[in-house]
Amino acid sequence: MLRIGLGQFNATVGDLDGNIEKMSKIWTQAVEADVDLLVFPELAVCGYPPEDLLQKRHFLVDNRLAVEKLAAACPEKTIVVGFAEGAQDGTYNAAAILKKGKINKVYRKSLLPNFSVFDEKRYFDVGTEPVVINVRDIRIAITICFDLWNMSWLKGLLREVGRLDMILNISASPFHVGKLTTRHGLISQCASEFSCAVSYCNLVGGQDELVFDGRSMIADSAGRIVAQAKGFYEDLLIADVERANDGAVRVKPICECAPQSVSKLEEIHQALLLGTRDYVRKNGFKKTLVGISGGIDSAVTAAVAAEALGAENVLCITMPTRFNRPETVKDAKKVAENLGTEFLTIPIEPILSHFHEALKAVAGWDDKGIAYENLQARIRGTILMSLSNQFGALVLTTGNKSEISVGYSTLYGDTAGGFAVLKDVLKTAVFELAKYINKIAGRQIIPDDVMKRAPSAELRAGQKDTDALPDYELLDKIIQGYVEQDKSAKELIDSGLAREVVHKVIRMVDRNEYKRRQSPPGVRITPKGFGKDRRLPITNRYIPDSI
Amino acid sequence: MLRIGLGQFNATVGDLDGNIEKMSKIWTQAVEADVDLLVFPELAVCGYPPEDLLQKRHFLVDNRLAVEKLAAACPEKTIVVGFAEGAQDGTYNAAAILKKGKINKVYRKSLLPNFSVFDEKRYFDVGTEPVVINVRDIRIAITICFDLWNMSWLKGLLREVGRLDMILNISASPFHVGKLTTRHGLISQCASEFSCAVSYCNLVGGQDELVFDGRSMIADSAGRIVAQAKGFYEDLLIADVERANDGAVRVKPICECAPQSVSKLEEIHQALLLGTRDYVRKNGFKKTLVGISGGIDSAVTAAVAAEALGAENVLCITMPTRFNRPETVKDAKKVAENLGTEFLTIPIEPILSHFHEALKAVAGWDDKGIAYENLQARIRGTILMSLSNQFGALVLTTGNKSEISVGYSTLYGDTAGGFAVLKDVLKTAVFELAKYINKIAGRQIIPDDVMKRAPSAELRAGQKDTDALPDYELLDKIIQGYVEQDKSAKELIDSGLAREVVHKVIRMVDRNEYKRRQSPPGVRITPKGFGKDRRLPITNRYIPDSI
Repeated sequence: MLRIGLGQFNATVGDLDGNIEKMSKIWTQAVEADVDLLVFPELAVCGYPPEDLLQKRHFLVDNRLAVEKLAAACPEKTIVVGFAEGAQDGTYNAAAILKKGKINKVYRKSLLPNFSVFDEKRYFDVGTEPVVINVRDIRIAITICFDLWNMSWLKGLLREVGRLDMILNISASPFHVGKLTTRHGLISQCASEFSCAVSYCNLVGGQDELVFDGRSMIADSAGRIVAQAKGFYEDLLIADVERANDGAVRVKPICECAPQSVSKLEEIHQALLLGTRDYVRKNGFKKTLVGISGGIDSAVTAAVAAEALGAENVLCITMPTRFNRPETVKDAKKVAENLGTEFLTIPIEPILSHFHEALKAVAGWDDKGIAYENLQARIRGTILMSLSNQFGALVLTTGNKSEISVGYSTLYGDTAGGFAVLKDVLKTAVFELAKYINKIAGRQIIPDDVMKRAPSAELRAGQKDTDALPDYELLDKIIQGYVEQDKSAKELIDSGLAREVVHKVIRMVDRNEYKRRQSPPGVRITPKGFGKDRRLPITNRYIPDSI
Repeated sequence: MLRIGLGQFNATVGDLDGNIEKMSKIWTQAVEADVDLLVFPELAVCGYPPEDLLQKRHFLVDNRLAVEKLAAACPEKTIVVGFAEGAQDGTYNAAAILKKGKINKVYRKSLLPNFSVFDEKRYFDVGTEPVVINVRDIRIAITICFDLWNMSWLKGLLREVGRLDMILNISASPFHVGKLTTRHGLISQCASEFSCAVSYCNLVGGQDELVFDGRSMIADSAGRIVAQAKGFYEDLLIADVERANDGAVRVKPICECAPQSVSKLEEIHQALLLGTRDYVRKNGFKKTLVGISGGIDSAVTAAVAAEALGAENVLCITMPTRFNRPETVKDAKKVAENLGTEFLTIPIEPILSHFHEALKAVAGWDDKGIAYENLQARIRGTILMSLSNQFGALVLTTGNKSEISVGYSTLYGDTAGGFAVLKDVLKTAVFELAKYINKIAGRQIIPDDVMKRAPSAELRAGQKDTDALPDYELLDKIIQGYVEQDKSAKELIDSGLAREVVHKVIRMVDRNEYKRRQSPPGVRITPKGFGKDRRLPITNRYIPDSI
């Protein structure tokens, strides 16, 4: 019988010493729990993805030194840990098997993802050799992340290794809504195909735009998911694995297991909390600033920040002009009160009028158009950034994915800041999230009025979002089709969406690539966010279906 | 005897109809010149690089339709043209051979670059079949760009095709300083290895950060570069190719050939002109704005803009505070006068003081530190963007690579704008460029004072760049080593650079990734710019050599 521990931990990219130290602590826990084999995720030593750090030769050298340090510090048990291997013949995404204080074997990932947010062919060479280890008479094949996602390929790799009791997979699998179901299916299928247990150890934590959700798991040879670790938190999942006389491989968890599934909104909420917390903290910040308007986006952003970082670390600032109605300013204050954050009001009308005075010197300037509207947003951005510089606090921006898609935002205005919490959350989902936040709090954190009022940027008298945009229900459908699924205008129109609106939205999406390119990172929660998974040229005259 | 024409033209990404139209016009010229075989660059139909447009199925369909349209419009001669092929079995970076109004054959690129600025493995499948065509008894193997850069691989691909008279290579090879020499060597070597002529047809034009410099060329079978097209401009290079009785393949240019090499400064200058012109025009702008301070960076930026776009399309604006010395304000005006651009002065002191008034309401705010300095830059950025919005003019930013490397800039301040002309030009090179601009103008466009004055941001009294940074000579050496060559601190120190300065600069470079991520694109002129060729995580705790 083998006792396995899956050390689902939160690595920080580049922090080799810190990551080793964390793993050593988990090792101590594992030793206390009599674990025989302790497993850490893909590239656990250096964090995932290290991107072009991998182009630095000294980074690869330091990676190996760190693995050797870990091996020396934790000699008693077998450890499997992911690291970046700079070998004579290439660079590999590798798993080191540590035994008796040394690196005993190395498995090199052989299926390298190079799509979506992944660029592994930029960095890594392809491994070709299977590695099987034997711990307590359990025969275990080592695999890394994507290796497991192509069953026929995996069969080829493992064709000649003989009987297996377990396939071990170390992963850094980024979260998106619904991904857990895919993983369950995959791991279950793999267990059935190979008639062996499958242990899947996933990374947890936020790294720039990506969130790794953990939820490491173990399937028995019948393909049942028998044990699952926590989602969005560190965890040590321990189970006993045994081959029975009938040939079946049984798995018995010896810790409390997390529930296997949660609601879509709970997933999104947890991902936003983790992504925001890790971005802020791993970049050395404690305090954050949120420009709060009385609208729903800034209310939800502030609520996420307060829960992720503690209300004492969030300062909400409202910066009204004559266009902000008293009730929205009141609601802004109400949200801050409900959350228990600090709240400041800085009226910007005097600054606005002095800008206007200065700009009037230029023939053709006026205060009637979009330039004057954007000016207000830029004054607010400047105030937030000034306070950010003065007090070392990170500005959280409040734009949602619907706005960002169509460029309904002011560059260097409301897009000014370090992290965009709702960057990948469509407006319709922001409304659902607001209700969810109130529900789990058991009280009205986000006031009813904020949810019911027609969305407005309040940059001119009587303005409404629907002056410039279709209803959000319709807009979000088009964005999902065009942005997330790469559908053409024709396909969208054929599916029943109004031709004129589809064309208008597509034009807006395409024209605003330059704004997105200069906008801050934010938490990715869909299979296609506006980060590394959607790389469009700014200079681009392609007009699908001859709009 | 074969008469070949290399149609080095300026494609626009996504503009399928426009590109086809341009190629049809070149075809008319080629017909007049009795060309038998007309060649267009890699992905000429859709522009290079189309990036994630390639993920859209309808884009691939439209690519094929465009090639068919070109074939039908130009039936008389053989044409080789690059396009993105969406086939049943994958997506290919392909060359269509057009004959008698139809697609006759297709060659699929087989060596896909996936490093530096290239992501071809993200998009394309690997071609495996050589394609040889016969035009006027000249046997020609078709290759695409990187296919030519690995001679032993190319020999393998062409092992069984029999005698060749010519290897044709269609390319989209981005410029960097010195790249022409590499290409000369490569093409010459290829011709000698295969004892045949090599025709190399390269793209020209700017696309976001990349500049394609053209300089298409033809080598004879002795490896001599016999003909070369213009650098940085469209050109139709025509030559006669013949296999002589002694087996040698002779090439005779029948047009005036461009000089084969130019100075480093001329290259940089031409690249900046083309990159800036194409970014501005291909994105639909005519007018540009430059915030001009009286310093050298903004002077050079304005000079490049005036030459690239016409002085009438550049508006220089100076926005002084009490910290700007009268002589620098005077120099700003002088530069605009010398260039013949419009010039505006908008004093920002009143706006600055009203911001200060508003911010004083926050306990702890003061006008002594970096926040107050950045505030001035952000007011300027806001004024430029307000005028940009009002008049539809693109703001050109003025930061150089040295500043951008160490984050010596204000996010949403002097980094606010659409295009960063000097993004990849180190400060020491900016000085050289200024002298070069004066030299070719034959007069002092950039005043001597501007070149001699110690660089200063003038954001506080008596400020100098050297208060915060090492001398630019030293700084630029460290940046070249650390940023462009990925050297470690240890390697830099071992090469004789001062330990403390190296450590300080590296720390600054690493900490300012977030600023670069939100900065505008700019012309790439080195082998490693701050664009797609340097992809570092923002969240990154790696400290090389335990600084």
